[in-house]
Amino acid sequence: MEVTRKNFKDCLSAVYSAIDEADFLAIDGEFSGISDGPNVSALTNGMDTPEERYAKLKKHSMDFLLFQFGLCTFKYDTEASKYIIKCFNFYIFPKPFNRASPDIKFICQSSSIDFLVSQGFDFNKVFRHGIPYLNQEEEARVREQAEERRNQQANGAATPSYISPSSKGPAHVPEEHKDFISRVIEKVDGLFTNSEKTVELEPCTGFQRKLIYQTLNWKYPKGLHVETIETEKKERYIQISKVDDAERKRREQQKLEKEQEELNDAVGFSRVIHAISKSGKLVVGHNMLLDVMHTIHQFYCPLPQDLKDFKEVSMCVFPRLLDTKLMSSTQPFKDLIPITSLAELEKRLKVAPFKSPKVETAEGFPRYDTAQEQLHEAGYDAYITGLCFISMANYLGSFLTPPKAHISPRSKLMEPFFNKLFLMRIIDIPYLNMTGPDLRPKRDHVLYVTFPKEWKTSDLYQLFSAFGNIQVSWIDDTSAFVSLSQTDQVQIAMNTSRYAESYRIQTYAEYMKGRRQDKDVNSQP
Amino acid sequence: MEVTRKNFKDCLSAVYSAIDEADFLAIDGEFSGISDGPNVSALTNGMDTPEERYAKLKKHSMDFLLFQFGLCTFKYDTEASKYIIKCFNFYIFPKPFNRASPDIKFICQSSSIDFLVSQGFDFNKVFRHGIPYLNQEEEARVREQAEERRNQQANGAATPSYISPSSKGPAHVPEEHKDFISRVIEKVDGLFTNSEKTVELEPCTGFQRKLIYQTLNWKYPKGLHVETIETEKKERYIQISKVDDAERKRREQQKLEKEQEELNDAVGFSRVIHAISKSGKLVVGHNMLLDVMHTIHQFYCPLPQDLKDFKEVSMCVFPRLLDTKLMSSTQPFKDLIPITSLAELEKRLKVAPFKSPKVETAEGFPRYDTAQEQLHEAGYDAYITGLCFISMANYLGSFLTPPKAHISPRSKLMEPFFNKLFLMRIIDIPYLNMTGPDLRPKRDHVLYVTFPKEWKTSDLYQLFSAFGNIQVSWIDDTSAFVSLSQTDQVQIAMNTSRYAESYRIQTYAEYMKGRRQDKDVNSQP
Ligand SMILES: Nc1nc2c(ncn2[C@@H]2O[C@H](COP(=O)(O)OP(=O)(O)O)[C@@H](O)[C@H]2O)c(=O)[nH]1
Ligand SMILES: Nc1nc2c(ncn2[C@@H]2O[C@H](COP(=O)(O)OP(=O)(O)O)[C@@H](O)[C@H]2O)c(=O)[nH]1
Repeated sequence: MEVTRKNFKDCLSAVYSAIDEADFLAIDGEFSGISDGPNVSALTNGMDTPEERYAKLKKHSMDFLLFQFGLCTFKYDTEASKYIIKCFNFYIFPKPFNRASPDIKFICQSSSIDFLVSQGFDFNKVFRHGIPYLNQEEEARVREQAEERRNQQANGAATPSYISPSSKGPAHVPEEHKDFISRVIEKVDGLFTNSEKTVELEPCTGFQRKLIYQTLNWKYPKGLHVETIETEKKERYIQISKVDDAERKRREQQKLEKEQEELNDAVGFSRVIHAISKSGKLVVGHNMLLDVMHTIHQFYCPLPQDLKDFKEVSMCVFPRLLDTKLMSSTQPFKDLIPITSLAELEKRLKVAPFKSPKVETAEGFPRYDTAQEQLHEAGYDAYITGLCFISMANYLGSFLTPPKAHISPRSKLMEPFFNKLFLMRIIDIPYLNMTGPDLRPKRDHVLYVTFPKEWKTSDLYQLFSAFGNIQVSWIDDTSAFVSLSQTDQVQIAMNTSRYAESYRIQTYAEYMKGRRQDKDVNSQP
Repeated sequence: MEVTRKNFKDCLSAVYSAIDEADFLAIDGEFSGISDGPNVSALTNGMDTPEERYAKLKKHSMDFLLFQFGLCTFKYDTEASKYIIKCFNFYIFPKPFNRASPDIKFICQSSSIDFLVSQGFDFNKVFRHGIPYLNQEEEARVREQAEERRNQQANGAATPSYISPSSKGPAHVPEEHKDFISRVIEKVDGLFTNSEKTVELEPCTGFQRKLIYQTLNWKYPKGLHVETIETEKKERYIQISKVDDAERKRREQQKLEKEQEELNDAVGFSRVIHAISKSGKLVVGHNMLLDVMHTIHQFYCPLPQDLKDFKEVSMCVFPRLLDTKLMSSTQPFKDLIPITSLAELEKRLKVAPFKSPKVETAEGFPRYDTAQEQLHEAGYDAYITGLCFISMANYLGSFLTPPKAHISPRSKLMEPFFNKLFLMRIIDIPYLNMTGPDLRPKRDHVLYVTFPKEWKTSDLYQLFSAFGNIQVSWIDDTSAFVSLSQTDQVQIAMNTSRYAESYRIQTYAEYMKGRRQDKDVNSQP
């Protein structure tokens, strides 16, 4: 189901109940770019530590916009032995909800934009009808501001539409506006002598409106309702109405309710994430680290500095995660699944020894057809991610005695895969462990090599040709990590390099020590 | 005429001839945002110096994308006493043209995007069919790279599709790819024994393709044409063909020509700017400083540090500029035109003492209707900017004896308005003088005041109430410039402030001296 600003409020209860009844949820996000840095490969070095990788992604990826969010809920129907699914494809855009709300800036990466439009992505829909959102801090601030305004009004310090700057005395009206203001006063005085109830002023500047509010508030503290109205063309003009006390109260109450509703509208899509979070349900994604980071960053709070704190926040927002890319590259799947990109995985899991899961789209929800790929629409990607998860889960059931055709997402068999997020292109740390410390592989067979920028991979192969198989992880064009196949070769390499002029070798341990020292120096005040 | 990537090449000669025959050109740009900074008003202080303003715009506005460029050419038909006009509305997008080309990142400001979509702007068209471009440096680099590749080929150092990394000896094939490569060699050997001319390999990774190129180049230095082909789904596979010498040469020639054409395509929209520039024609815009800055930044070169250098570059690219916002706020127009926004100006210039100019859309060009506003489409905005210019120019003719109904853009009467770009919201410097030093108004009636952030404009009015009329230019929430109406009040204000605790006053001169010193300190190594 496609959800935009236009039908969001009407869909919200359907979203809530879909989450409530689900056995698990699958999610996916689309972003306006991936990496703000020089190039993606430099940012994802094969020898990153989890801390380094997190810091790089935080620094170089969070200024992009998550503008489409796919949510697919899966509910198991025991009698029919199949899953009932509901897919939502949310368009998201931070339309400023009033003049005081933050004017979000986001980066677009032309390759990402180009890729998405080539897949038929509709940017007009995002920009025109995207659902707005606020993170928790923004929401709190906006609610507080509204509260304050209400209190001021209750104390009679101001009319609802006006907050006094220094509420004593008449407004200071600069010379050049005096004529204008007297004309306004004349018109308002007219209101009290004729039978009209309302007068509408000409559109004017913000400063003039301020003067009008100040003047009228001081001259007619009660008995007038003053309101700024915006035309379709975004011109603002002031409407002044003569009202009795009851009428004024009614109008103010109306205004208050409208304000409350606007506030909820402004929180917008964040309410869906709050619901997912509160449900505590298993959330499945494919290669989902960036999805989790963006979701928290955009709808909860700025990402914490430290990886440890990020894990804590994530576990609050999504208490149980499962990454199908990590699952499919772990045994017993690893040997059966050569390529783990979502599209390939989905194809592979349709054939033996795997089985396509039995699913049925819930009534009233549009049906996705996996034969007709709609890859890179977030709702579709979430959908097939869920299918992949079911196929793999059920496959594990075939090892039981007796074999079981359906394995619940709550089964003990799933536990090894919970809360481990796939780490792309790190050679020896397959995942980020969200509930504890990460793996710390010994990297004592790894060398840090620096060399002239003319060097190619082949030069490195040549340099280490005596040591058999090596693995090169480029850092930039004058340095790389080289993994030797045996640790005892490290000392030999170090010895031979001692007098080399064109290149330099350090052990991984030395290199990391140097980096830590650099950091300490840099972080001193 | 709407111009996208799809019809750009077909339109180019029409664009060139429209420029060639024109008496003057009008331009306008649409951007993905205006200001990257905290807020626009803080960035456009009423007391900025031209240098400061330029530095702020350069720092906070150039990361946005100019994604629509309007060009309207005006040719005067003396016999019919009317202008013949041709309007072009170019959609622009930096689609990466190959894998080596820069992957541009740009910022979007949600308020700007929201505003444009609310005006019906079509972002899908921009992103899907926008015309690419290269600045001069990028163009030079890309052409050099192509040249180099050609030279290498001429020297026989490499087949056209392959540049050797260290061209001696066979490629080093890592253990895990040996099987794969032997299978490729088998297939190619097959080519020489059977009647097939071509074999297509399965899609494989970039690294595997590299190994294939290296291996084949070494094993079969002649007699094979190896080419990487990209499928519609962006998968790359290798095609290997058995060719004789003549055939290989023909293919290489073909490839070269294709490459040249692709290069021109990549330069794309920049060619239009080059043509405008070369024509030396008068270029008219409305409030055009940002348009000029973006155009140079995007299609010529990164903007220079110094304002002086910027003026020089601008005058190379656009030797004659005229800003209708500046013109309309200069006498004799100033007193006749209360609001100088483009839409208001256009309306005002339709009525006496002004006259709507007689124009006719050239055959084959779509007609804009000023009764049906299409404001904020760049082509339309350029069009009405041109109309405004003509009306104002012709009005000047009414002062001649005998009066003249048509004033040429080359008339002496225009000279006072040439090469002066409107400076928004600077109180005492109306324009940037592109051909020399700027006005340096004495600011000896101006005070720099700092105060607690609780202060409002009214507190400043109160503080200076003894001095009559003042003018406040906010800098941030704890400082502002205050212009007194008389210079001799400055000393009195300074004296009274000496013992004040809550606020501090400096003269403008003191303030500027302090800033210069700060700068000198900061710019020391
Ligand atoms: N000097 C040199 N640098 C290289 C070479 N290959 C890669 N690099 C550098 O290492 C970075 C990472 O490259 P790589 O891991 O191959 O990823 P890729 O950019 O996705 O192909 C590149 O951006 C280059 O700066 C090479 O052959 N020679
Ligand atoms: N302390 C204080 N700061 C203000 C006030 N009005 C404006 N400012 C500051 O000055 C900046 C410029 O404001 P202004 O020139 O009024 O432009 P505006 O933001 O377009 O209304 C604002 O962003 C605020 O930081 C005020 O009444 N009190």
